[in-house]
Amino acid sequence: MAVVLGPNRYGKAETRVVRITRDGGVHHLKDCNVSVSLSGDMGAVHRVGDNAAVLPTDSQKNTVFAFARKYGIAEIEEFALLLARHFVDSQPTIHHARVEVEEYFWDRVRTEGATDQGQHSFVRSGREIRTCVVHHDGPSSQATIVSGLKGLTVLNSTGSEFHGFIEDEYTTLRPTRDRVLATDVNAAWRHRGEHEDFGTSYERARRALLDAFAGTHSLSLQQTLYAMGGQVLEACAEICEIHLAMPNKHHFTVDLEPFGLDNPQEVFFAADRPYGLIEGAVLTDDAPDAGFAWE
Amino acid sequence: MAVVLGPNRYGKAETRVVRITRDGGVHHLKDCNVSVSLSGDMGAVHRVGDNAAVLPTDSQKNTVFAFARKYGIAEIEEFALLLARHFVDSQPTIHHARVEVEEYFWDRVRTEGATDQGQHSFVRSGREIRTCVVHHDGPSSQATIVSGLKGLTVLNSTGSEFHGFIEDEYTTLRPTRDRVLATDVNAAWRHRGEHEDFGTSYERARRALLDAFAGTHSLSLQQTLYAMGGQVLEACAEICEIHLAMPNKHHFTVDLEPFGLDNPQEVFFAADRPYGLIEGAVLTDDAPDAGFAWE
Amino acid sequence: MAVVLGPNRYGKAETRVVRITRDGGVHHLKDCNVSVSLSGDMGAVHRVGDNAAVLPTDSQKNTVFAFARKYGIAEIEEFALLLARHFVDSQPTIHHARVEVEEYFWDRVRTEGATDQGQHSFVRSGREIRTCVVHHDGPSSQATIVSGLKGLTVLNSTGSEFHGFIEDEYTTLRPTRDRVLATDVNAAWRHRGEHEDFGTSYERARRALLDAFAGTHSLSLQQTLYAMGGQVLEACAEICEIHLAMPNKHHFTVDLEPFGLDNPQEVFFAADRPYGLIEGAVLTDDAPDAGFAWE
Amino acid sequence: MAVVLGPNRYGKAETRVVRITRDGGVHHLKDCNVSVSLSGDMGAVHRVGDNAAVLPTDSQKNTVFAFARKYGIAEIEEFALLLARHFVDSQPTIHHARVEVEEYFWDRVRTEGATDQGQHSFVRSGREIRTCVVHHDGPSSQATIVSGLKGLTVLNSTGSEFHGFIEDEYTTLRPTRDRVLATDVNAAWRHRGEHEDFGTSYERARRALLDAFAGTHSLSLQQTLYAMGGQVLEACAEICEIHLAMPNKHHFTVDLEPFGLDNPQEVFFAADRPYGLIEGAVLTDDAPDAGFAWE
Repeated sequence: MAVVLGPNRYGKAETRVVRITRDGGVHHLKDCNVSVSLSGDMGAVHRVGDNAAVLPTDSQKNTVFAFARKYGIAEIEEFALLLARHFVDSQPTIHHARVEVEEYFWDRVRTEGATDQGQHSFVRSGREIRTCVVHHDGPSSQATIVSGLKGLTVLNSTGSEFHGFIEDEYTTLRPTRDRVLATDVNAAWRHRGEHEDFGTSYERARRALLDAFAGTHSLSLQQTLYAMGGQVLEACAEICEIHLAMPNKHHFTVDLEPFGLDNPQEVFFAADRPYGLIEGAVLTDDAPDAGFAWE
Repeated sequence: MAVVLGPNRYGKAETRVVRITRDGGVHHLKDCNVSVSLSGDMGAVHRVGDNAAVLPTDSQKNTVFAFARKYGIAEIEEFALLLARHFVDSQPTIHHARVEVEEYFWDRVRTEGATDQGQHSFVRSGREIRTCVVHHDGPSSQATIVSGLKGLTVLNSTGSEFHGFIEDEYTTLRPTRDRVLATDVNAAWRHRGEHEDFGTSYERARRALLDAFAGTHSLSLQQTLYAMGGQVLEACAEICEIHLAMPNKHHFTVDLEPFGLDNPQEVFFAADRPYGLIEGAVLTDDAPDAGFAWE
Repeated sequence: MAVVLGPNRYGKAETRVVRITRDGGVHHLKDCNVSVSLSGDMGAVHRVGDNAAVLPTDSQKNTVFAFARKYGIAEIEEFALLLARHFVDSQPTIHHARVEVEEYFWDRVRTEGATDQGQHSFVRSGREIRTCVVHHDGPSSQATIVSGLKGLTVLNSTGSEFHGFIEDEYTTLRPTRDRVLATDVNAAWRHRGEHEDFGTSYERARRALLDAFAGTHSLSLQQTLYAMGGQVLEACAEICEIHLAMPNKHHFTVDLEPFGLDNPQEVFFAADRPYGLIEGAVLTDDAPDAGFAWE
Repeated sequence: MAVVLGPNRYGKAETRVVRITRDGGVHHLKDCNVSVSLSGDMGAVHRVGDNAAVLPTDSQKNTVFAFARKYGIAEIEEFALLLARHFVDSQPTIHHARVEVEEYFWDRVRTEGATDQGQHSFVRSGREIRTCVVHHDGPSSQATIVSGLKGLTVLNSTGSEFHGFIEDEYTTLRPTRDRVLATDVNAAWRHRGEHEDFGTSYERARRALLDAFAGTHSLSLQQTLYAMGGQVLEACAEICEIHLAMPNKHHFTVDLEPFGLDNPQEVFFAADRPYGLIEGAVLTDDAPDAGFAWE
């Protein structure tokens, strides 16, 4: 028996970069968290600690900041591609780069009256985080681009049923024709390739997720998940596959009978754990092979 | 030397109640986290485990749910007052109640097209949490009401300076005429008394906090804090005191010189720890004694 | 109506300092999180942004690191006192210092065989965090010293009852003669004054907390809390007051009857929220006035 | 273009079960968090909300509790296997089960004196969490079993170097011959098959991880990772592959020169973000195909 090295990667995780662009007195803000993972000729560093093939993670961090200055951060997918290509193309020992970016959203503070402070004052907005993961694998091959979001919390206060399920010896759940359906949407979608408009694509995909969640009379969270994935694919021709992970955030109807009260779906206990967890992929039948896109 | 019991309280913390109100097909949603703390004749339970004076925390939880059904949850301050008075007024052994409520915000999902799904579909919105702490101390005395918010993250990308400070032997910081100023606003304000419009009051106070943050050319975070507190007091006659705790979320200008790049306040590293922490109270000169309001 | 400044303080929070002491090849490790809060002549900085009285929080951070080098970190209380006195005594505009330190524990890695690696290899141990809060208020007055711990999670699998409580119209809880009692102990105790042996004192207080938790047949968590506080005071003559906050981490006996199974206190569901929360102070009848010790 | 369903699974996540076993007056405690994921004939539920093939996640939760009563929880791997086989073998529509278990450790409270309280009093110990992930894919195939741990935080205060790395135009890091090396070990190892002694295996693997971390004079964290993986494989013939993810928790030597102080590797700033992240697999050259073990 011999010990061998399997798949490996290394990099600098969670470089928190804020980029401000000044357009006269009007400022624009981009708030990102960038994680780089590189792989390549890493046998020697693992086996004997020879770092000759290793670009320090500290240099990766510096590159993130320097590129933010040189190129700005327009769409996070573009910034991730720029970084991924740089590492692979500039270092002979680095054969593959994975770059993940999270983006946090800010709104302008709209002040009343005739002030210009709104030009450089911002308030963190929304709860969801926009994400992307880009892989680049050598100069000749095509990069893969996965965009997504996490932390989009949604709730339907009616329009959700659950019945007709298997009842085994451990089943005590009763069928219901009206329940609260709530989830945190964690979604990641694969682009067919590079394109010009990741910002619009994001808005369109997010819109499709919300529309399908709200617009589906749900017989199960799986059905809702599939409808959401399908609607994204229909709305976005540039996307060929989507992965969704959605916890069923249980809202239990509280039994108020002991207190002489009915509860016509009005008062709920929002539970923490355990929770259902529904995960699924939806794709187009012509989706190209994903390769390493989801790693 | 004898051992004696000092101040004490007990209760059920973090009852997560969601209240849905149906207005025909249009639903309204209130999402709260309620924590009750009671005190009174609790000598025996501490000393010998005699529970005769103890209303179980489980009953407190039940009361939260039952009251949500019976009375609804309009403004969280009113719901907290209702609960606090109930516990003190209905139980001879309970002399004081503290009720804290957090409220989480939801927006309606606005779907495109002629659908009515927006009537009962919601998405968690914003990042701040509305809060209140109410104290009630026996039937004859006035309750105290503190409202507030936490998690309101704001940033000015210019309009902030810091110089003229003490320079001791451990000072290496250089004065600056232009920096990023960012903080998470944690604020709590004391009402002069009960009134009819806690919802409007909240919006007005929040607006004043944002306006003052954006509208203050800052020479120090303390100055900004004081301006924010003052603006709330000026905008809201019903409020007599405000406490603010604001971390200085450092955004360090990255030194890009080693890479042959300048950095005219464009690229920042958003640091985690350590951070400055500025805390202060601002009040009106006619504010009545706070009593136990801030406990 | 005029707006006035109330109590305020500012400082650098959460400076993460690790101090290694080399005793020949044997290393010693101290891992701390230091938060400084200063107050004094801070009217001008709040009102007009004049920083002449402000020692920058950056300088405070530097002082923490420099003092760790110059004086080492023996007991956290001593290190906190050293810092608190330095800020007040060296700066005329600073009249009061509050220094809080958290300490994280590490064990040596005991390797098998005749290696000396254990001399400088460590593994984070335990789950509780040792804490202290020190106040110093000018050169003439005595400092106050509060030590404590948080995150000490304990559980008795029997020896706990709960019955004889108030039953109001919202009570559905049934009395029990045997339940699981579990809590996270958060404790802070006030020393009568400075002394020579904070390390031994900590161990003795911690031991008393555990002994009393394990040794008390409990009729309520309040009774257990009071016994724990009392045992600390009895074991530690140097301590005159203790504050305890202990969540009742509910472990519900699962109803297995629907599956034809009994459950003689063997299978429990460990719930998250809501939870009981019991808070109380225990002190000696000769405890001196606490002053600002608990702020 | 048509939309198709890709890989999917669903189940109940994070069922928190505590199992107490009474051996006369001596109690034994097992504290686990169980997450079940099932897959199978799930086309209809996704496409039209037909739940006929769906065993409710609520029933899965009930099964966890009932099995804890019927079979006890000896080693988490065995309990996971029992559950995984039950779901697949009892439900024709369920073809594959993934069961993940986390175990939290408790020590007995050892009280002084002649008390028997230690028999049923426990304190949460250690910081690491033992984990397992089991897959079962129909009655005929072999299950896969991955065990592991997370949250094992270790630090070497010397015996670590980093030099000889690539220096590109964004490199400012200086080579070092002595640094602090600290990480949180997250490890998962694949067993060759079922065996009789998962408890001993866990202890042996954990021991090998600690020994190798402490016993490796490190030229890079990658070298340490590989040594740790190799030592587990050498110590544990029952294990054929191990995956390690180890953040480089940077401890920066603080520059104290501005204060007239040297810093011979004594005072460090423990940084939060960014951090290096080193991930790698180590396996034996005869390791059987992993199949779905790592999903």
